[in-house]
Amino acid sequence: MAQFFYKSIIFFFFSLLIMHTLALDVKKPCKRFVVHFHDILYDGTNAANATSAASANATNLGNFNYGKLVVFNDPVTKDQHLLSPPVARAQGFYFYNMKAEFNAWFAYTLIFNSTEHKGTINIMGADLIAEKTRDFSVVGGTGDFFMTRGIVTIRGEAIQGFAYFRLEMDVKLYECY
Amino acid sequence: MAQFFYKSIIFFFFSLLIMHTLALDVKKPCKRFVVHFHDILYDGTNAANATSAASANATNLGNFNYGKLVVFNDPVTKDQHLLSPPVARAQGFYFYNMKAEFNAWFAYTLIFNSTEHKGTINIMGADLIAEKTRDFSVVGGTGDFFMTRGIVTIRGEAIQGFAYFRLEMDVKLYECY
Amino acid sequence: MAQFFYKSIIFFFFSLLIMHTLALDVKKPCKRFVVHFHDILYDGTNAANATSAASANATNLGNFNYGKLVVFNDPVTKDQHLLSPPVARAQGFYFYNMKAEFNAWFAYTLIFNSTEHKGTINIMGADLIAEKTRDFSVVGGTGDFFMTRGIVTIRGEAIQGFAYFRLEMDVKLYECY
Repeated sequence: MAQFFYKSIIFFFFSLLIMHTLALDVKKPCKRFVVHFHDILYDGTNAANATSAASANATNLGNFNYGKLVVFNDPVTKDQHLLSPPVARAQGFYFYNMKAEFNAWFAYTLIFNSTEHKGTINIMGADLIAEKTRDFSVVGGTGDFFMTRGIVTIRGEAIQGFAYFRLEMDVKLYECY
Repeated sequence: MAQFFYKSIIFFFFSLLIMHTLALDVKKPCKRFVVHFHDILYDGTNAANATSAASANATNLGNFNYGKLVVFNDPVTKDQHLLSPPVARAQGFYFYNMKAEFNAWFAYTLIFNSTEHKGTINIMGADLIAEKTRDFSVVGGTGDFFMTRGIVTIRGEAIQGFAYFRLEMDVKLYECY
Repeated sequence: MAQFFYKSIIFFFFSLLIMHTLALDVKKPCKRFVVHFHDILYDGTNAANATSAASANATNLGNFNYGKLVVFNDPVTKDQHLLSPPVARAQGFYFYNMKAEFNAWFAYTLIFNSTEHKGTINIMGADLIAEKTRDFSVVGGTGDFFMTRGIVTIRGEAIQGFAYFRLEMDVKLYECY
């Protein structure tokens, strides 16, 4: 019996070692994909092409659109081309929130409805535009993305004044069911 | 000693099998309940009854209230009757976000403060009104719902123009502590 | 061999006991800190000091700012002093949502960018102002706070009309990687 407990203790530490390895492994995504997010802001004349519109205008605090709140329903593509067939829609909003430079905050849902994927991914976070890349949180998912969590790394790819911008979104999911 | 490692390996795969079974089980909610959400939009004259009001009006992008943002504090009941004693409040907001049909996005907190339940459940997701049912994410909870996660399946039950709508919310929690 | 299975079963229940202990332990934070959140609302004249501004004004539903939506970029300090060097920024928004008293709803990101911490914490929840303390959900994190979850307990510390308020935020993280 003494030997049994001795073996159990060895086995216990052996198990801890495995669990430790698995825990570290959480840093490796169980699913990862890169998509591109296209935003065309409504200017009063481009209703046919616009994918977003301002619900609230900028306040006059600073000169960087502080408080401007934009509701979007943007196409999301696999490559960088605006006119490629979308693989998802991104529905949500962002607002600008800095006096001295452009900076924003986002909350949105990626909606997949194709033969490849059906379901949604819910995302929120600060868009620190001055940083080369910045991270949002994946806080939940439904359908094929049931209960998922993770990180979306954002990178500005293109900007044409307020008329158009494109973001690269590197979606890394660390919990998949 | 060789036999010990042989036994350990059997035990390891046996453990994996059990863990696998437990992991599949995550698809069965640890808590589930159906509630009904009642929204009466403020029209300027119904202050006594109104449970929501528009913070931002619709833009003129399309004819489906694009950009209209509504703040709500809505009663949530166990049955379908508006005047039943509420089991919770739903505090949050939604906005419309589609040019060509009605479609919305929600973020809100269910607040329970009864002898049965004290605590909150935080929820967000896309309300794809064209779909018969759609799923939001439960992204966190407090009190009796400490750290919970899950899915809320939404179904439109009744709509009276912009004056009133009722949603069925099937709350399925998969992480309970 | 019979003895092996007998031992395995003992070991299995022993493992369950350990796992159970670990699961209960989730109620003890893996990281905890208290910070103070300072909000100075823009009134049209205090642009130099203001840290927040209203994107949408109050509706006329009740007398408690129903529907007023404020975008903030607030300093967060370790002690209670507004002018202490910030340890983080809080970027996000809140809106008032009650007819008969002051009550609000928040979603925001705590942004750390110091030698001590780099990363973000994403938070949302109902600010039940009438309660002495109330809990928000930590729904995700990035960088040093990779994938974190938890609770933020809020307590009003100071209020000067609409010009300034300070909240104590007791951040309790229960999932750390």
